[in-house]
Amino acid sequence: MNSELQSELKKILNSRFSESESTRLNYARGEDTYDPILSKAVVFPETNEEVSKILKLCNQHKIPVVPFGTGTSLEGNVVGNDQGITISLEKMNKVLSVNVEDFDCKVQACVTREQLNDYLREDGVFFPIDPGANAAIGGMASTSASGTMAVKYGTMKTVITGLTVVLPNGDIIKTGSRTKKTSAGYNLTNLFIGSEGTLGVITEIQLRLSPIPESIMSAVCHFKTLEDAVKTAQEVIQYGIPIARIEMLNKDQMEISIEYSKLKDVEATPTLFFEFHGSETSNKESIDIVEEISKNNNGSSFKWAKDLTDRNKLWKARHDVYYSVKAQINNGRVYSTDVCLPISKITECVNFADAEAKKFGLRAPMVGHLGDGNFHVLLPYDPEKKETYQKIRKFSDILIEKTLELEGTITGEHGVGLHKKDYLLKEHGDNLPVMKSIKRTIDPNNIMNPGKIFDLN
Amino acid sequence: MNSELQSELKKILNSRFSESESTRLNYARGEDTYDPILSKAVVFPETNEEVSKILKLCNQHKIPVVPFGTGTSLEGNVVGNDQGITISLEKMNKVLSVNVEDFDCKVQACVTREQLNDYLREDGVFFPIDPGANAAIGGMASTSASGTMAVKYGTMKTVITGLTVVLPNGDIIKTGSRTKKTSAGYNLTNLFIGSEGTLGVITEIQLRLSPIPESIMSAVCHFKTLEDAVKTAQEVIQYGIPIARIEMLNKDQMEISIEYSKLKDVEATPTLFFEFHGSETSNKESIDIVEEISKNNNGSSFKWAKDLTDRNKLWKARHDVYYSVKAQINNGRVYSTDVCLPISKITECVNFADAEAKKFGLRAPMVGHLGDGNFHVLLPYDPEKKETYQKIRKFSDILIEKTLELEGTITGEHGVGLHKKDYLLKEHGDNLPVMKSIKRTIDPNNIMNPGKIFDLN
Repeated sequence: MNSELQSELKKILNSRFSESESTRLNYARGEDTYDPILSKAVVFPETNEEVSKILKLCNQHKIPVVPFGTGTSLEGNVVGNDQGITISLEKMNKVLSVNVEDFDCKVQACVTREQLNDYLREDGVFFPIDPGANAAIGGMASTSASGTMAVKYGTMKTVITGLTVVLPNGDIIKTGSRTKKTSAGYNLTNLFIGSEGTLGVITEIQLRLSPIPESIMSAVCHFKTLEDAVKTAQEVIQYGIPIARIEMLNKDQMEISIEYSKLKDVEATPTLFFEFHGSETSNKESIDIVEEISKNNNGSSFKWAKDLTDRNKLWKARHDVYYSVKAQINNGRVYSTDVCLPISKITECVNFADAEAKKFGLRAPMVGHLGDGNFHVLLPYDPEKKETYQKIRKFSDILIEKTLELEGTITGEHGVGLHKKDYLLKEHGDNLPVMKSIKRTIDPNNIMNPGKIFDLN
Repeated sequence: MNSELQSELKKILNSRFSESESTRLNYARGEDTYDPILSKAVVFPETNEEVSKILKLCNQHKIPVVPFGTGTSLEGNVVGNDQGITISLEKMNKVLSVNVEDFDCKVQACVTREQLNDYLREDGVFFPIDPGANAAIGGMASTSASGTMAVKYGTMKTVITGLTVVLPNGDIIKTGSRTKKTSAGYNLTNLFIGSEGTLGVITEIQLRLSPIPESIMSAVCHFKTLEDAVKTAQEVIQYGIPIARIEMLNKDQMEISIEYSKLKDVEATPTLFFEFHGSETSNKESIDIVEEISKNNNGSSFKWAKDLTDRNKLWKARHDVYYSVKAQINNGRVYSTDVCLPISKITECVNFADAEAKKFGLRAPMVGHLGDGNFHVLLPYDPEKKETYQKIRKFSDILIEKTLELEGTITGEHGVGLHKKDYLLKEHGDNLPVMKSIKRTIDPNNIMNPGKIFDLN
């Protein structure tokens, strides 16, 4: 970085500009499989105006900028840039407004999902998008994230109605509206959602909230085979049951989670976690049908979470699967696949993944948001063992091929980052010229998170 | 049009290329307030490849192209271009595939919403987006349409997971996926939804369907005042009741609809039409609460649609309000407002519209998708009477100002077209440079529906 830019940035940010190696290392990667890459500096803006000044300067100097939230992304989306700077949004962590009567709120980018739900606790509303990590809502917007409740509540696309975005030229724009719907011009909100920081920095998010259901009931059901579990989930969805969560954990993952999360009264077999949100009567109706479907697929009787503590423990275990798998290997890393399929293809694809992992001799704990047709194979490895990583990538290649054959998508919720650039070409090669032309027109100097999602040639 | 382009188009389309005045007049406008503008020719392609050839040629010759579905848009979105051609998609009207087990289907652009639902009748699934008109699904995608069931089922943005789009350069791209969610690169699907034919021609749409509910119950409730009706709707939503439809008709609209649609057993007072979709028990639960809320706001007892015929008649009347108002004046036209607000502001805004219309001495039947905060003032006028139209536009200006003050949007579901270009500047002036740069990069010769949504300077 040239000294002019350096001194300009210092002038704006004072002590919130850091070139220390330890800081740069802290912001050098997410929870992906890449080696850290240190940006030349890390900056910590507090306002839209500061972000604007930073981008304007970097644009003038043609210096790359990597936006960084909680660093919990899985695809290399926030890996640093050795020619550029990383913008940590962590000081933009305030809930700006909550309107319970409209079920909406506005937050700064680094409010995390748990922080928001803590903030809302007394209000009878909640924010339903829950990736495993306690991610920043700005980061979740950037990757178009979802989680275990997407089957009922949708994804970030569903709940975001507007954004404040700082563009590479420093312009601050507010997209969308507080309203439930709008047809006012191009849908820029949804263009920035999922753009992984390559088009600008999302600094504020206007969100829809959901009323806390009158009755919430969680149950666990064990199966003899993985196929039985997956088929059950498939049939529940095809039956049109309004379920809030339907999560699969395979035998290996159950073993790991029982140990890591100290789960009691559950068994290490292929398992479904269910949750029902509604009134007591409507839940009862749904549960009767789901129990029937499970029984027909050789499922165990349902084990109900007795109280809130029990329920929280169950879902905490589910949210922690990534960390539970990571803990399998000292200083290990985890490669997670993220394919998503039409629901009728999910059994075939999970079976395929299971068989292929075995062929490769890979340890392959598996979890699935089966209601959405989305599942993850979590592949732990020792980064010293390059050949294991090679095997993992080969397995991933084969799974992607199968997925595309079955009309699925390469990523349901993690985004493309660095890991999936080749896969994106396979799925959307015909779309890439349009994506690239949009990138070039909004970010002509290619300063925003360059090299993520796709390479500009 | 130069003779070279003319003969090339004839070569591709043969008799499906028309320069006859009567044909050109048939495709010269939608259901907007504009005088017809005749394009130089109308073409009727049957395949993606034909659309591609047409756009490629027009792009080479820099000739404007106006895509046309059923011509039921309300904002001037399909008004012809006297230097260009109109592409009628009406021959692309086939349902391409239906996968009931995945609740999805793929249709060509000019399949209409009623045609699709007829096609699906035996399958236990339906397509829930229902603007008043029997519109083409491609047109509905282009304006980001919705309708009476959006409160439960969302808008076109919610149900479309992928598109086939022919770009101005003739490239045919397939965006999105059949899956319920994806994070694979920029969300081009949602960029084309609502772009009103200014970025390309949507030729195929991948749609999510919904299971037909076990129980459907429709009721009518009369109120003494408009405010009571609107407040009831507001409170039902704020209570979080899972309602499928909650439609307001004011006194004037009720009078008109009773006459036009020969409605029996209802009164000409401010009225709500309700519909509940669910199981019998869950509907009963919801109905009890809604009846209670209505009663507290001086609502009448509910009048239930006795059977399917009754129910269809009720909703047909609701869907026909535009035509019922149009029928008030011989050869009349109707200007429809389309503001949408946060639900907490809806009572204030409807009251304001009602009072202002009176001040202007305008006849102002009103309907509202109140569950979404969206309502329409339908202003009939004789096109010969320019001063009435001036008054209407002034009324509209004032309503837009109030709406923006209340954090609403200028259009909930009709789009911008020609009518609302100035309003778009007011709502999203800061977004327009980005919208225009996207337009320029995808359509550098500005051939696609030029002058709609915004003017390129």
